[in-house]
Amino acid sequence: DDPDRATEAREQVQGLHYADAADLIERLDEDRRAVLLSLLKGGFNPEILPELDDDVRETVLDAFGYADYAALVAELDSDDAVYLVDHLDETERAAVLERLPETDRTVIEQGLSYADDSAGRLMQRELVAVPSYWTVGDAIDWLRGASGLPEEFTELFVVDPRHRPLGLVRLSALLRARRQDRLEALMDTGLEPVDVGMDQEEIALLFRRRDLLSAPVTDRAGRLVGRITIDDVVDVIDEEAEDDMLRLAGLSETGTYADAFATARTRILWLTVNLGTAMLVSSVIGLFEATLEKLVALAVLMPMVSSLGGNAGTQTLTAAVRGLATRDLSADNAWRQTGKELMVGLMNGVVLAVLAGAAAWLWYSDLPLAGVVATAMLLNMIVAALVGMGVPLALERFGVDPAVASSVFVTMMTDMLGFLAVLGLATLFLL
Amino acid sequence: DDPDRATEAREQVQGLHYADAADLIERLDEDRRAVLLSLLKGGFNPEILPELDDDVRETVLDAFGYADYAALVAELDSDDAVYLVDHLDETERAAVLERLPETDRTVIEQGLSYADDSAGRLMQRELVAVPSYWTVGDAIDWLRGASGLPEEFTELFVVDPRHRPLGLVRLSALLRARRQDRLEALMDTGLEPVDVGMDQEEIALLFRRRDLLSAPVTDRAGRLVGRITIDDVVDVIDEEAEDDMLRLAGLSETGTYADAFATARTRILWLTVNLGTAMLVSSVIGLFEATLEKLVALAVLMPMVSSLGGNAGTQTLTAAVRGLATRDLSADNAWRQTGKELMVGLMNGVVLAVLAGAAAWLWYSDLPLAGVVATAMLLNMIVAALVGMGVPLALERFGVDPAVASSVFVTMMTDMLGFLAVLGLATLFLL
Repeated sequence: DDPDRATEAREQVQGLHYADAADLIERLDEDRRAVLLSLLKGGFNPEILPELDDDVRETVLDAFGYADYAALVAELDSDDAVYLVDHLDETERAAVLERLPETDRTVIEQGLSYADDSAGRLMQRELVAVPSYWTVGDAIDWLRGASGLPEEFTELFVVDPRHRPLGLVRLSALLRARRQDRLEALMDTGLEPVDVGMDQEEIALLFRRRDLLSAPVTDRAGRLVGRITIDDVVDVIDEEAEDDMLRLAGLSETGTYADAFATARTRILWLTVNLGTAMLVSSVIGLFEATLEKLVALAVLMPMVSSLGGNAGTQTLTAAVRGLATRDLSADNAWRQTGKELMVGLMNGVVLAVLAGAAAWLWYSDLPLAGVVATAMLLNMIVAALVGMGVPLALERFGVDPAVASSVFVTMMTDMLGFLAVLGLATLFLL
Repeated sequence: DDPDRATEAREQVQGLHYADAADLIERLDEDRRAVLLSLLKGGFNPEILPELDDDVRETVLDAFGYADYAALVAELDSDDAVYLVDHLDETERAAVLERLPETDRTVIEQGLSYADDSAGRLMQRELVAVPSYWTVGDAIDWLRGASGLPEEFTELFVVDPRHRPLGLVRLSALLRARRQDRLEALMDTGLEPVDVGMDQEEIALLFRRRDLLSAPVTDRAGRLVGRITIDDVVDVIDEEAEDDMLRLAGLSETGTYADAFATARTRILWLTVNLGTAMLVSSVIGLFEATLEKLVALAVLMPMVSSLGGNAGTQTLTAAVRGLATRDLSADNAWRQTGKELMVGLMNGVVLAVLAGAAAWLWYSDLPLAGVVATAMLLNMIVAALVGMGVPLALERFGVDPAVASSVFVTMMTDMLGFLAVLGLATLFLL
């Protein structure tokens, strides 16, 4: 209300680093956010946009309108602009693209033509390419005079006449060489060119394995079209590890700033699937109502067996999903690793069988009952190892992300087989 | 056996990138690994060592002996050397340090004096620092002549007479400036100095938030002692996300290359804790044996309620652990986020209560029983939301890693309260 306080607030936000400004905007409740956004209109730092959570960015679009939003997008680097336009729904995307200057629109549309999560999306088009016959002196003189160079760069890409990358010259090497040295003699030829269609997960693995700082991106014809730097890959690495962790729990995203209804909607699907698996498990128990009626102790003890199986299975599953992501686990050592997990299940199964059997015996002073619990525990630990390895390996084989194997399916198997083992063994040997 | 084949094998491995050589060594079984290591002795690329899994690196130490291992360590950059020595046990560490040249030993011992996971461990000591009164020409002339510069660098750090960092000049800016420009006028002063004791998790957050490529590291007196670059931070980001994921499943590491016995030992502790919590859960059921005897349908239906509660709790827990790691969730919005999770639990609880109640009714044609199942489901979904948020927030408050809250504890709570709700309500209303 107070114009002085308004100006003060605006100046304070404009003085913040864009990441902190984004954080502040995210944390405000809806009313205050609307007030702040209306204050910032006209002086909004476009760098804030890519930092915002999807749900919060939506409210910025609503507050600013298509024309102002397009003007902000136009100010950003091409990779950020593509990211923002890609994260709009179809109507919004058309409306924003329409309001962009012709050249920006063409660049963004070209960026969007590359597959999601491909090198084409990740790369920066801005780079410095020089011909191989140049000397150090040629390059330095040209760099001093040239316009339209990227703001920051750490290397020159040396290309052949058809614009295919031959090597790169680091600026530190360029600075220390003599003017008459040829770039060809100076360049590092150990390039790992990345195809423009390569998936970001593969790119992240390549960077990590090779300790790369940057890589040239080439099109089908092998021509240099962009470059990917380690800082682009950092986000991918973080995202991929986060995705695995969230998928294992049946989440699509944390969505800290999504409202309760949207969050509930993203989770209910998975919980409904889980209700289906839980009903299957219950129907297994239902087969043994007669046994349970005669021996109600089984209802008390059987969750112990299913719970341990579920947790051991989740341990194996998590290790397998992580191993597949880092390529420590792959087709050529899958059998050996499964054999190892089986051994682990067997060893821990014996320990837990003894402990659980002892507990059952102390509780009910019934040795045959204790024997059934112990045997069921051992069996379930072996099942947990097989399922925990088998489900993610099978999914990977069929090209499905192994993290969606999620504890839900593994737990369903260990629950079903845990209850089946306790109740089945009891029916056979105790009645 | 065949000397020609041996030479061929050695040459093939030596032709590999060190990351691929490490991979090959990891994947061989013990006998072949021993043969290959004995072949490579004397021509082993030291860069392979930091890439190896701990368990495999141990076998290399055994094969080569302390003296040869120390010689390999001495060839590496200081940060890698510190890493390797740090990963030895005490006897081995003393033996290897003793066999290192004096200067290397001093550098490594200094590196080890910094706290685990601190900036001092992560930083490279090699950097280029120049005084602020220099011109571009001074810097270029000095760079051309100086010896002992790092092999690669992308910026000059500008320091004051007491060696405190004032700013940095990127090489791309240096190359494009005029010789008479003063560095002071050219430098970027937006430095984010990192204290030598800062924890690596904080550093990773700082780099991600600020989109940093490098940062100067300063000691207590503010003097420049090293620099951290984004590629050092990549490993930290990956490690931290992995740690959270593994801890949630009760694992300390994937240990793909550890043997079965070692793996079983790292997992049994957590499973034993889980057996304890499962016994607590069973004892809750045990309180209601009389109820179960009269209504065995409860034994069939109650795992449905506990299973859904466990999964909903794990969803909330995972989102909370990730939110705490990225600082999207913190003390100042904990109440609001908990309120949101409660709303989510309520909404999804109503949906699942209706579905589960309907299933129970179809199964047993018993409306009061269906009502008990539905009510217990709703209650357990609310408990799941509270426990899934409360446990990690409380642990964070007391300075404990919230990821160790692990599904085990949340599942214990949702299991106990799920069974208690079904059996308690049944005892009150159905008997």
